[in-house]
Amino acid sequence: MPLRLDARSPGFAGEFEAFVSARRGAHADVAGAVAAIVADTRARGDAALIDYTERFDRVRLTPETLRIGADEIAVAKAQVDAETLAALDLAARRIEAFHAKTELPALNYVDETGIGLGARWTPIDAVGIYVPGGLANYPSSVLMNAIPAKVAGVGRIAMAVPTPDGVLNPLVLAAAERAGVTEIWRVGGAQAVAALAYGTASIRAVDKITGPGNAYVAEAKRQVFGAVGIDMIAGPSEILVVADAGNDPEWIAVDLLSQAEHDPHAQSVLITDDSAFADAVTAAVDRVLARLPKAEIAGTSWRGQGGVIVVGSLDDAPALVDRLAPEHLELAVADPDRIADRVRHAGAIFLGRHAPEAVGDYVAGPNHVLPTARSARFASGLSVFDFVKRTTLVRCDAAGLAKVGPAAVRLARAEGLEAHALSIAQRLKG
Amino acid sequence: MPLRLDARSPGFAGEFEAFVSARRGAHADVAGAVAAIVADTRARGDAALIDYTERFDRVRLTPETLRIGADEIAVAKAQVDAETLAALDLAARRIEAFHAKTELPALNYVDETGIGLGARWTPIDAVGIYVPGGLANYPSSVLMNAIPAKVAGVGRIAMAVPTPDGVLNPLVLAAAERAGVTEIWRVGGAQAVAALAYGTASIRAVDKITGPGNAYVAEAKRQVFGAVGIDMIAGPSEILVVADAGNDPEWIAVDLLSQAEHDPHAQSVLITDDSAFADAVTAAVDRVLARLPKAEIAGTSWRGQGGVIVVGSLDDAPALVDRLAPEHLELAVADPDRIADRVRHAGAIFLGRHAPEAVGDYVAGPNHVLPTARSARFASGLSVFDFVKRTTLVRCDAAGLAKVGPAAVRLARAEGLEAHALSIAQRLKG
Repeated sequence: MPLRLDARSPGFAGEFEAFVSARRGAHADVAGAVAAIVADTRARGDAALIDYTERFDRVRLTPETLRIGADEIAVAKAQVDAETLAALDLAARRIEAFHAKTELPALNYVDETGIGLGARWTPIDAVGIYVPGGLANYPSSVLMNAIPAKVAGVGRIAMAVPTPDGVLNPLVLAAAERAGVTEIWRVGGAQAVAALAYGTASIRAVDKITGPGNAYVAEAKRQVFGAVGIDMIAGPSEILVVADAGNDPEWIAVDLLSQAEHDPHAQSVLITDDSAFADAVTAAVDRVLARLPKAEIAGTSWRGQGGVIVVGSLDDAPALVDRLAPEHLELAVADPDRIADRVRHAGAIFLGRHAPEAVGDYVAGPNHVLPTARSARFASGLSVFDFVKRTTLVRCDAAGLAKVGPAAVRLARAEGLEAHALSIAQRLKG
Repeated sequence: MPLRLDARSPGFAGEFEAFVSARRGAHADVAGAVAAIVADTRARGDAALIDYTERFDRVRLTPETLRIGADEIAVAKAQVDAETLAALDLAARRIEAFHAKTELPALNYVDETGIGLGARWTPIDAVGIYVPGGLANYPSSVLMNAIPAKVAGVGRIAMAVPTPDGVLNPLVLAAAERAGVTEIWRVGGAQAVAALAYGTASIRAVDKITGPGNAYVAEAKRQVFGAVGIDMIAGPSEILVVADAGNDPEWIAVDLLSQAEHDPHAQSVLITDDSAFADAVTAAVDRVLARLPKAEIAGTSWRGQGGVIVVGSLDDAPALVDRLAPEHLELAVADPDRIADRVRHAGAIFLGRHAPEAVGDYVAGPNHVLPTARSARFASGLSVFDFVKRTTLVRCDAAGLAKVGPAAVRLARAEGLEAHALSIAQRLKG
């Protein structure tokens, strides 16, 4: 059974804090193995990629077959039924439309001293997108990573996807083509991350790498950070549902299981103001589990990581939400805005009884790559902002420098930086 | 002598690429030592902080003296002369004014399906600012880290600053007070980073840690990343000056040295279209060096890391600038916009002959915490954006879900995620 807490019980504060603290990323210790693969791939390039792919994916590549060609993408696309392609296209259009609304607020003004100040945004030149192979091979993730890059104006979007035993989901290739990926490489693991970061004879180095992956991929991203940018290190998925008794318990049960089915370490939490409703949802979870194909994963997650918290009033929910800082927050209540307005830390919020989190995984428009493991306290979901950077501008003439320069000279000397002081002072003379 | 290259010589492309590639962050291997300090501080809290401070800073603290009190700040401030305090205030006002102009573009609209979509920004609750002690103890960095946090609306700004042998620059305390720092802790090193990340009996944990530091601090930030957010891992400072023969060579020489004096590993590069001017700047550097207090550091940097590149035309400069992706770009030319408009990768750009980079270190207004080691390809300087996060919003009713839901169900089933599919499908019935 998932942990059940009652906010009106005397020990609640401590029990809830223990529940919050228990949610820590489980780090597999793969740093040494990954460092060796990264160093070898950096040194030997394509040859290392080919060796590791043979060893880990049981596929023998050549420099010529490292890249997936246009013909192969066309063949894959032809294997996907028209209705699924149409669904993919609807998702892509909606994701594109939402991300295209992102404003990048430039600055350009002259202040009262006559100094011109500004900030401008430019896209990253080249981005690498990692797409896991095998079980967690999600076409929707291809869209969610590539489309914001494309919208941002990134010219080169290189995708790496392993093909264990030569198997590749055709829908992943269709999604890559639809999203505007410019090249696809048939490699995965830490070696793919190293190849994207440092380049090989075949693969030109990129400037930033995004996308989910297993412990090796996550650690490789951490190790190449600095040489290239990376997005967040994603942990297991999470959903926090705040629901009142006005919901069908089964709807809420399925929503909780929709994240639990991702991963045995995923976390699904219900906050409700009605103890009987909590019972009903818990019972419904067991009924739904019985008919889920991924019942084992979802059940392990629910029993091991799940939580049901009964509060005296829904007005007590926002403070608990902020402590949990969930990746996904679903507000299935009569007045979702009342709660949403008081929540500060959540990756994405779904408002209303007809806004299940899963709609955001595919077609709502906002990104489904969101901060996990309480990092919504300080991090945001993937967006156009992750594929641009901001350059500040200072335009100064003699008159402007005369107004602010003496203060800078004073501070530079206070810091013992005489060349800093001189570089301004010499221009203030005469 | 610094490396000198001529873009018109046949071997230039290869030589320039070698110069670009040589610029790699030198990683001291302190990971093991840092991991031990972080784990110990996490386990023993204040007691560990007190032990490490005694060992590394030769100062015996108690839980009562960990925090620097208001009285001590007042005493420190009284030691600073009025003119320096006025300079600090001018800098703070200008930094505040620039950062306050940052727009955080919220989104809130209803699309053609009736689905409401949006994005909103909220400040981070608590930020830790690391301020190095000893030599690199810069009051300006206190302003540059704390003011954007304050402007963003961060409620709690906790500063950690070590006081080796009990010594602390009074101007650092004055800057902290002026910038709106809410608490100051007399600790440094990896132990301070761990205390800020995980909390101790005295120091409450923060959500994000920013600020420069030595190799131990940088590695500690890397290790606690995930538990808290961090800003970039800063490398040695860099300046790239593009200058024509219309400049006083000595002005440009001093500008180059203004970054070289920071660190023997700092890098200063000149690009000019005039070979005789290049000679004149090189000669001027030697003259200026002779009278700099930090001549040894600056000379080591200039001779070991510096570069002088003569191009056939200034129109060739932007491509070289983008390859170097400098932290600071100074455009001391007749028409700086002509170059600036074609540059894509730079942390900050200074336009005109009276815009020395040092003005940006103190009083211009934009942040002086900027991406180093070519990370301007993918990263931005510190700003209000680093102290907020973005939450997306999806508001959906039955009619909206009916329009997009079937596509999501289709994609969820293609990904083998039945609970995802069900959570939408159950709401589409009836």
